[in-house]
Amino acid sequence: MAKLRAVLIGATGLAGQQFIAGLQNHPFIELTGLAASPRSAGKSYVDALRTANGMTAWFVPEALPASVARMPVVSGDAVQAKDYDIAFSAVEADVAREIEPRLAKDIPVFSAASAFRYEADVPLIIPPVNSAHAPLVREQQRRRGWKGFIVPIPNCTTTGLAVTLAPLAERFGVKAVLMTSLQAMSGAGRSPGVIGLDILDNVVPYIPKEEGKVEVETKKILGALQAGGTAIDSHGVKVSCTCTRVAVMEGHTEAVFVSLGKKATVDEVSAALREWRGDEVARGLPSSPPNWIELLEDPFRPQPRLDRDTHGGMATTVGRVREDGVLENGFKYVLVSHNTKMGAAKGAILVAELMRAQGLLG
Amino acid sequence: MAKLRAVLIGATGLAGQQFIAGLQNHPFIELTGLAASPRSAGKSYVDALRTANGMTAWFVPEALPASVARMPVVSGDAVQAKDYDIAFSAVEADVAREIEPRLAKDIPVFSAASAFRYEADVPLIIPPVNSAHAPLVREQQRRRGWKGFIVPIPNCTTTGLAVTLAPLAERFGVKAVLMTSLQAMSGAGRSPGVIGLDILDNVVPYIPKEEGKVEVETKKILGALQAGGTAIDSHGVKVSCTCTRVAVMEGHTEAVFVSLGKKATVDEVSAALREWRGDEVARGLPSSPPNWIELLEDPFRPQPRLDRDTHGGMATTVGRVREDGVLENGFKYVLVSHNTKMGAAKGAILVAELMRAQGLLG
Amino acid sequence: MAKLRAVLIGATGLAGQQFIAGLQNHPFIELTGLAASPRSAGKSYVDALRTANGMTAWFVPEALPASVARMPVVSGDAVQAKDYDIAFSAVEADVAREIEPRLAKDIPVFSAASAFRYEADVPLIIPPVNSAHAPLVREQQRRRGWKGFIVPIPNCTTTGLAVTLAPLAERFGVKAVLMTSLQAMSGAGRSPGVIGLDILDNVVPYIPKEEGKVEVETKKILGALQAGGTAIDSHGVKVSCTCTRVAVMEGHTEAVFVSLGKKATVDEVSAALREWRGDEVARGLPSSPPNWIELLEDPFRPQPRLDRDTHGGMATTVGRVREDGVLENGFKYVLVSHNTKMGAAKGAILVAELMRAQGLLG
Amino acid sequence: MAKLRAVLIGATGLAGQQFIAGLQNHPFIELTGLAASPRSAGKSYVDALRTANGMTAWFVPEALPASVARMPVVSGDAVQAKDYDIAFSAVEADVAREIEPRLAKDIPVFSAASAFRYEADVPLIIPPVNSAHAPLVREQQRRRGWKGFIVPIPNCTTTGLAVTLAPLAERFGVKAVLMTSLQAMSGAGRSPGVIGLDILDNVVPYIPKEEGKVEVETKKILGALQAGGTAIDSHGVKVSCTCTRVAVMEGHTEAVFVSLGKKATVDEVSAALREWRGDEVARGLPSSPPNWIELLEDPFRPQPRLDRDTHGGMATTVGRVREDGVLENGFKYVLVSHNTKMGAAKGAILVAELMRAQGLLG
Repeated sequence: MAKLRAVLIGATGLAGQQFIAGLQNHPFIELTGLAASPRSAGKSYVDALRTANGMTAWFVPEALPASVARMPVVSGDAVQAKDYDIAFSAVEADVAREIEPRLAKDIPVFSAASAFRYEADVPLIIPPVNSAHAPLVREQQRRRGWKGFIVPIPNCTTTGLAVTLAPLAERFGVKAVLMTSLQAMSGAGRSPGVIGLDILDNVVPYIPKEEGKVEVETKKILGALQAGGTAIDSHGVKVSCTCTRVAVMEGHTEAVFVSLGKKATVDEVSAALREWRGDEVARGLPSSPPNWIELLEDPFRPQPRLDRDTHGGMATTVGRVREDGVLENGFKYVLVSHNTKMGAAKGAILVAELMRAQGLLG
Repeated sequence: MAKLRAVLIGATGLAGQQFIAGLQNHPFIELTGLAASPRSAGKSYVDALRTANGMTAWFVPEALPASVARMPVVSGDAVQAKDYDIAFSAVEADVAREIEPRLAKDIPVFSAASAFRYEADVPLIIPPVNSAHAPLVREQQRRRGWKGFIVPIPNCTTTGLAVTLAPLAERFGVKAVLMTSLQAMSGAGRSPGVIGLDILDNVVPYIPKEEGKVEVETKKILGALQAGGTAIDSHGVKVSCTCTRVAVMEGHTEAVFVSLGKKATVDEVSAALREWRGDEVARGLPSSPPNWIELLEDPFRPQPRLDRDTHGGMATTVGRVREDGVLENGFKYVLVSHNTKMGAAKGAILVAELMRAQGLLG
Repeated sequence: MAKLRAVLIGATGLAGQQFIAGLQNHPFIELTGLAASPRSAGKSYVDALRTANGMTAWFVPEALPASVARMPVVSGDAVQAKDYDIAFSAVEADVAREIEPRLAKDIPVFSAASAFRYEADVPLIIPPVNSAHAPLVREQQRRRGWKGFIVPIPNCTTTGLAVTLAPLAERFGVKAVLMTSLQAMSGAGRSPGVIGLDILDNVVPYIPKEEGKVEVETKKILGALQAGGTAIDSHGVKVSCTCTRVAVMEGHTEAVFVSLGKKATVDEVSAALREWRGDEVARGLPSSPPNWIELLEDPFRPQPRLDRDTHGGMATTVGRVREDGVLENGFKYVLVSHNTKMGAAKGAILVAELMRAQGLLG
Repeated sequence: MAKLRAVLIGATGLAGQQFIAGLQNHPFIELTGLAASPRSAGKSYVDALRTANGMTAWFVPEALPASVARMPVVSGDAVQAKDYDIAFSAVEADVAREIEPRLAKDIPVFSAASAFRYEADVPLIIPPVNSAHAPLVREQQRRRGWKGFIVPIPNCTTTGLAVTLAPLAERFGVKAVLMTSLQAMSGAGRSPGVIGLDILDNVVPYIPKEEGKVEVETKKILGALQAGGTAIDSHGVKVSCTCTRVAVMEGHTEAVFVSLGKKATVDEVSAALREWRGDEVARGLPSSPPNWIELLEDPFRPQPRLDRDTHGGMATTVGRVREDGVLENGFKYVLVSHNTKMGAAKGAILVAELMRAQGLLG
């Protein structure tokens, strides 16, 4: 079977590099086009990464594949949808608003950008949690007259929270969540991202717009596709966050307080997290981990440096499940989620895999 | 007027060094005795700090005062209460249980150790918050037949929380608090404290016993001395915490969610924090800051590295006051409190100053 | 006596902020003008620092003086030399090349930029080391037809090295130096400076152009003003460096290997460093430390975090003086120098103080 | 063919854990015995790692193999040489002095401890560099009347230096080396190792005894086994070091200045490093990397975080090869070597593999 031909827009940035790493040796997706800003157009990919100082600005830990290094880079404007089966987008929100709809007229676009996350006909998918939302793209196509569609992934801070709330919502219901995040620097990218002088020996207690994103996205992801498939009813859970930045490379840590819909014990909550397998259709995809949630017994875990790479960065690790004593049916726990794997490029690739399995790519 | 002669037990450890720095040039307390483990006894203080490698193990940023460097160190067991007016204690809890009661038979003991914090006749004092609890020492003296007493200070993580809850409790009432701390390494001391390999590029989501301490102590501090002065009625506020360790030298950051006793606006909550002056008797003491709480408007503040030293580390800085949207009359904010100044030695010195002003030392 | 009226160009950047902090309460220099890029022109200084996110971008540890906060900012192009007695420059090299000569036609310009450091009629002054070079400005004025002049300070990495070589050169002669620096992040500024993702858990072994600067500047600073005062003969010392960046906020550490001109013992080398008082005219200036070099006996010192602020960041701390065993008359030692105090703004202010004492400002 | 049965002494410490990780799935060595202090004796390995706090003290990034987790731990004193073919030792020097000779009476002992490194009949082997020294163990056996022998590996800081000097010594001769190291925290282990409070935002310019080790070991490793095979003539290269500690997890960075025995160009020096294949017998061993040295063209490399894991941590990465301009035929470069892979356990396993290939184990 021929592989799906994929174009990556925003290929030179940190998020784009993560897509390249995530698509390396993919069983049915082949990266056949790379696009970036006009400044990079006409260069080979490795030349586009080279800075004035002679440095090759390749920042992900995986090696730059030699075949990608040689590929030509075109300007985003020059990408022709007819040359590809799907597109991945790693551009900033403002660029996404221009280029993603143009491509979506013809092909599916899987995007790490926030530009379309909050539109009514756009699903926000974490495959094990809400694969049932995917058919909303049919409504999106109908309304917009597109043959393709746009499916963004959630904010990286939302992902770990939603993954851990899903089994609790299923088994007990969730009524309210209060969460404090301790977020890694990689989430801020590199332009300029987090400056070393600002974060060493420090905590920065504010990440602009982040808290609002988490609050809205969590409700949408835990919501239900209406009968008829034309809109999503947000979940009624109340969500409140404080998002902070800490001196960690990768891996967001979140301290969660949750009020459940009914009485439960610590053992029951732990079991719900440990036993959760997520939506059937999301199991066994190429990028799916063997387990979406790994519950750790060691009270000092999860820790971002030790646990972020669990199952290739696609699992959410959870620990310290305890009764809360304040909220009604309250529990608290700590999670670590890899913000640039499950929370970014590999998460978007996983969505593409899911929708292919659901027969929604055609 | 003659200065109060003070002995410091546990003088060589990090907490002890902070007492030495805090008492330097004190207007009415003079450090006239230093005690440490038998290993140090008989040496001058500076010799007791010298390690096998030739290093002088003095760890606080302030210079070691030359006069203290020359002072002889005695074994804790050899300290005679009759030679001093008051004692400061910077020993571990198990040592405190032995030595503090022996000294308290004759003189007041102000302690950073947790050993006696939870006993019914022992007040836990933050001067601007609950100076009214101080007379409980009379009951302590009566029950135990002591001429002196023991007054411990709270856990360093409790302090910033209680300071910020006090004005809210006064003006609106507080019903529930959920707090996540991002604690500095200095709180763990140096034996061995936090190992570099464990904390660089990392968060450790568990500090043994810390959460329980904060939950119990906050209620006691916000509570009321019973009529008759023989016990404290704990405050009814429900408290739930997750305490984590981050790669910060000094200064605990806390993300607080609080449910108030009545409706309020962000402006009213901000005003309550900004305008709070604390108990009258605690103002203008030698170690009192001009303001107990500094409210910062910059949304990126407070940050531990930038704000921990506000007013010599004796102020709690607060920012990001927002509505919470989940809790009843819910608000959220972030605070930074200097864990080894207001939260440790200087906090204990402040209590001594308070109780002298209250006439309770005699 | 009226204070010297000073204008600061490049006032909003990190280097400019250090000048503001260093000039606060200066006995005979008053900051009466602030200039920055056209983007800031017309705003008050505090408004010019405010970012789109609502943050006040003031980055030095000292508080922003209220009087400076209210001062208006003009565009660099609009600064009129006639309104000032002297200028301080904290702009980038390319901007310096435009604006500094324009001002130097009329007034002395003390600059942290590298633009003019290597010109034959421009002295590069570290006051205790080579105050004798200062009269070269008369030649500069003659050649260029200026009433003012430009005096840049050396690169921050050169400064600590040159300060420690000076006493060795005086007493023993120095023939060769091999130095490896471990440089702080603040030296790179904030635009974007060192990115957190690049430096956490890491060392970056290259700082563009730095090594060449240190090699050339050291020879010039240790050189001699020719009879007639029209040029500097560079010192014959050979210098070779490797400059690296480490995860340190402030304070450059340098591991130095030096070949002396004649035999010496460790005690003699230590004494030369300890006893050095530098040029007589540089002692007792407002920004002079009581001692230019502090020799530390503790083998674990100097450390940047513990020692950078010695004497207000104006002293160079030295330790680990040992025989080298490889170079002829070889010795090795470690130094720490505060790169943004002695090595930047306060170093430039010190030069202004020196030249006033030398009667060269008029 | 039956695998070699190996016992590991010092199994619970960080160095021991690195041996366990390095021996996982080894083609011809099987870990069949684990020894530690009497405190651990009688427990399963995983139980021996469990702390009072409930934490499993397993610190290497690789997962603890389930089969090892279940293995019983015995006291080091109880290990019987007759039960094993070889031993690996990860104990401290003082324990090594007791236990290693006892085992060496009967079986080969490969040790990470420094106890026997400097004895005349003990080779110090880096397989690609000086495999020719290995037969010295025959002299060791003869002199001491042992059937086995002790072969320690060098200090982790020596290893990268000696690996990079070897090709230069072969092709040009090396006369002198001046090196400054920026060492990772993992080299100090965990008892207590480097304390976070000491290293964050800091450099510690002294590591007790380290410099002397590097100076002596480098000469021994680059030396020649005398005809007759009874002793090693140290190489005449002069070596001088300054060893510092930085806030890096793993991977020592070293800035090297070297004086060659004859004229060369940067291209020739680079080629010598790039083309070096090391001793023939050391190629293709199970733990050998495809290339012992990787020369990087990017001027910002090598960096410890990016390059330490090259070829499984068994390659030394080198960059920034430049003329030095000070030393006779002087060159300078920067290297990164993985201190706990090539420089510790995996380096010792590699020596065992080498000596088996040389027929010296029987």
